[in-house]
Amino acid sequence: MKESIEFIYKEQKELSTLGGIAALLGWDQMTYMPMMGAAARSEQSAFISRIAHEKIVNDGFWNHIQNLSKNIEALSIKDRAVVKRLEKDVEKSRKIPSDFVERISKTTTIAYQAWEKARGNNNFKVFAPHLEKIVELEKEYCGYINLPGPRYNTLLDDYEEGMTVDVLRKEFSFLKTSLVEIIEKIKNSETFKNQEKINIKLDQDKQKKISQILFEKMLLPKEKARIDVSTHPFTTSMGDDDVRITTNYGRDSPLFSFFSTVHEAGHALYELNMPKDEYKDTVISDSPSLGLHESQSRFWENMIARRKSFWEHFYPIFQNTSPETFNDIGLERWYKIVNQVKPSLIRVEADELTYCLHVILRFELEADMMDDKVQVSDLPNLWNEKMNEMLGVVPQNDVEGVLQDMHWSGGSIGYFPTYAIGSIYSSQIFKKISDVNQNLENEIEQGNFANILNWLKENIHKHGRLMTANEIIKNACGEGLNSKVFVDYLKDKYYCIYEV
Amino acid sequence: MKESIEFIYKEQKELSTLGGIAALLGWDQMTYMPMMGAAARSEQSAFISRIAHEKIVNDGFWNHIQNLSKNIEALSIKDRAVVKRLEKDVEKSRKIPSDFVERISKTTTIAYQAWEKARGNNNFKVFAPHLEKIVELEKEYCGYINLPGPRYNTLLDDYEEGMTVDVLRKEFSFLKTSLVEIIEKIKNSETFKNQEKINIKLDQDKQKKISQILFEKMLLPKEKARIDVSTHPFTTSMGDDDVRITTNYGRDSPLFSFFSTVHEAGHALYELNMPKDEYKDTVISDSPSLGLHESQSRFWENMIARRKSFWEHFYPIFQNTSPETFNDIGLERWYKIVNQVKPSLIRVEADELTYCLHVILRFELEADMMDDKVQVSDLPNLWNEKMNEMLGVVPQNDVEGVLQDMHWSGGSIGYFPTYAIGSIYSSQIFKKISDVNQNLENEIEQGNFANILNWLKENIHKHGRLMTANEIIKNACGEGLNSKVFVDYLKDKYYCIYEV
Repeated sequence: MKESIEFIYKEQKELSTLGGIAALLGWDQMTYMPMMGAAARSEQSAFISRIAHEKIVNDGFWNHIQNLSKNIEALSIKDRAVVKRLEKDVEKSRKIPSDFVERISKTTTIAYQAWEKARGNNNFKVFAPHLEKIVELEKEYCGYINLPGPRYNTLLDDYEEGMTVDVLRKEFSFLKTSLVEIIEKIKNSETFKNQEKINIKLDQDKQKKISQILFEKMLLPKEKARIDVSTHPFTTSMGDDDVRITTNYGRDSPLFSFFSTVHEAGHALYELNMPKDEYKDTVISDSPSLGLHESQSRFWENMIARRKSFWEHFYPIFQNTSPETFNDIGLERWYKIVNQVKPSLIRVEADELTYCLHVILRFELEADMMDDKVQVSDLPNLWNEKMNEMLGVVPQNDVEGVLQDMHWSGGSIGYFPTYAIGSIYSSQIFKKISDVNQNLENEIEQGNFANILNWLKENIHKHGRLMTANEIIKNACGEGLNSKVFVDYLKDKYYCIYEV
Repeated sequence: MKESIEFIYKEQKELSTLGGIAALLGWDQMTYMPMMGAAARSEQSAFISRIAHEKIVNDGFWNHIQNLSKNIEALSIKDRAVVKRLEKDVEKSRKIPSDFVERISKTTTIAYQAWEKARGNNNFKVFAPHLEKIVELEKEYCGYINLPGPRYNTLLDDYEEGMTVDVLRKEFSFLKTSLVEIIEKIKNSETFKNQEKINIKLDQDKQKKISQILFEKMLLPKEKARIDVSTHPFTTSMGDDDVRITTNYGRDSPLFSFFSTVHEAGHALYELNMPKDEYKDTVISDSPSLGLHESQSRFWENMIARRKSFWEHFYPIFQNTSPETFNDIGLERWYKIVNQVKPSLIRVEADELTYCLHVILRFELEADMMDDKVQVSDLPNLWNEKMNEMLGVVPQNDVEGVLQDMHWSGGSIGYFPTYAIGSIYSSQIFKKISDVNQNLENEIEQGNFANILNWLKENIHKHGRLMTANEIIKNACGEGLNSKVFVDYLKDKYYCIYEV
């Protein structure tokens, strides 16, 4: 027993070390690596993945885990939690043949290139045969893991443990109907019809200065976190006390760098507050799901940073940094600008209200593909029909439509729903925090986020993977995933803005 | 045989991959890592070192190498070169017990902290007991490797393969006498007595701009190289096509960032032009010695960038970037400023002429320590006496004297001489290049370094570790290490500047 305990903790520690190395290799590739460093980098990343994978599926490791699992009653509470979690993870990994891992890795590498080419040619057909292979491989994968219910359950479980198609169909169907209804009302409002076109420019140095202020106000400690620049913003951790976020100051709107910084800072705060001490360098010190991780970023991005009280504090900072741009606008108008609703074609550019419809569209297509109800060749047309149904806009070409996201080319089917789950969770979290803190709006107006962060630490962050995301939300907010809370929040907010 | 060949190339490739990962971990630590990332980073670096070390000393690897070595006549010329080189390296590594590796690693980690503390307290005694341990460990190390002659030969060989105390005593003794004599003459000159105090300021953005221009003029390709900022400048390679240099724009003099960029760019050009194709990812694709590496950086820094013709091209660039600073100075005066001789206490701040005396001082102390002729406790006094003898200046305290370099705290005894060897080699290289290229000064005046770089590629870089450094220099310049060439160069240059 003692030997097994020692072994599994040593292995987890080394896996955590390897994870940090892999994160650095990836971060550098996206931020500073000279272009031609790519060849060596892909060897380096593959090498680290291979060592990590060999460790995870190693028979010795499995035998030690099994030995402990059989004697689980004799273990401490902490060791029990670790062994149970580890057993589930390792068992899953061991079900997948290593030749499959290689096949999917090769297929997705080529598929990604094909996706880029298809975008260049504005032609889904260039990508279609590769996506077909990926869909076949995903079905094969579902065969190995084989969770109960429809195939798609198995894929969902990888990103959002315990989540099922049934639950999501129910939640998303209510969410879809409600969103379509809200959007319809808003589109008919005078405010919508007269809303201004946004065209604000802010030079990169000023955007950078504001991002740095935001970084500090959000209580990200400089000695543990930093912000750099990459094409697409992301967050990654090299260690418990080393988290990096990125943004991009070169986009059309200066709002992009601001809101992406808030979003990634939300992820970073979660990463920095994962369980330490007894759970340091164990499988527990991680997020239980992408949806819960996304709830943290969207909480800060939408619930906090698109709030009127937030701008009471931040608008003067913007004014101060660039009086020539902001003195004329005024807080009221600015608040409407940052919350402008505009049904549009591209998910990553969507506003808070319409965003989830983009996700639900992908969910419906993915679930039906995995059920053999939809073929890859049907996707472009179905995509356009659904866009029209849900958002009333129709892509003029594949780049604006079915080719817009890279996820499928990387084999990530089942990933998209986590974005909407995160949005829903974030509204539930906000509701709870405002229930328990009567002074909340006041604190936000002051730019004082300490109590908010503490609540998140105590109720979300510190649990790591001791429970599923849904259990954590249930404990924290009194109920699991509930899109009604999100819908109520959206109605309150947007009916007020659009005077409906 | 075929299996052995495959095995050794696969292992070398993986060692090269691990080397790139280790380089990235180190680079990030010195440039961007948040302070508290240090704990995880040290685990990550130790993990990679351990895997690499295990690979190198692995019996299977050794058996394959031995198998090939026994049948060396049957191998291709390329394989022979690789096997011979590899056998020598691996044999050396296998002579060192792994507990020794651990002991020295622990001792130097603690010694480095003690060195920092000793500097904080300005007291060598805080560091002395740790240095004593290190000296004992280095002697133990010499026992394992046990090259012929004095112990110090073994240490020298690690940095400068084939170099011996005898050779260096002869070269350095001539160099010392000559330098002392040249400095004496210069110090007595009117020009020296009247030379101006330098106090030039240049804001960081302008320094950065100039460094970027320099980077391009030196033909460093942007897609393979980049420049960042760290406390101490350095060069490192993450891959054949990914080299990073650093500088520091925050020092007192703007000359610091300029000359450190030239220096590191010299290292980087060498790294980028190591043998590829057949020797890619083999033990041959590396520098044979630190001295030869240093010859490349000092060649560009001193032979090229401290030259009058160089400033014909670069002074206008400085003027252009900051007319308010440089319009008043003028090229003639500027050339004297960048070549000002001033005997001083700190090695890293020393000018081209006095620099090697700092190195020779350390060489003499190290050689005597390894011969048991000097004790650690004698070092502060001996240091000060030698400074007075050679440079006519005496440290007022240990920080200005024996505590100034970190090398010993890291167990690097035998490293310092490579700085002087590099300086000597660089003068021999320059002499040869000016012999074969009658148009050289003209090209430098134009800022056209293509022919110079090509000569270095063809005569130095492309050989990798196929020969020792001294053999490469002999092939390229007609003779091995010869400090007389360096002394002649210095006399010509500085007697002219100081009108002696």
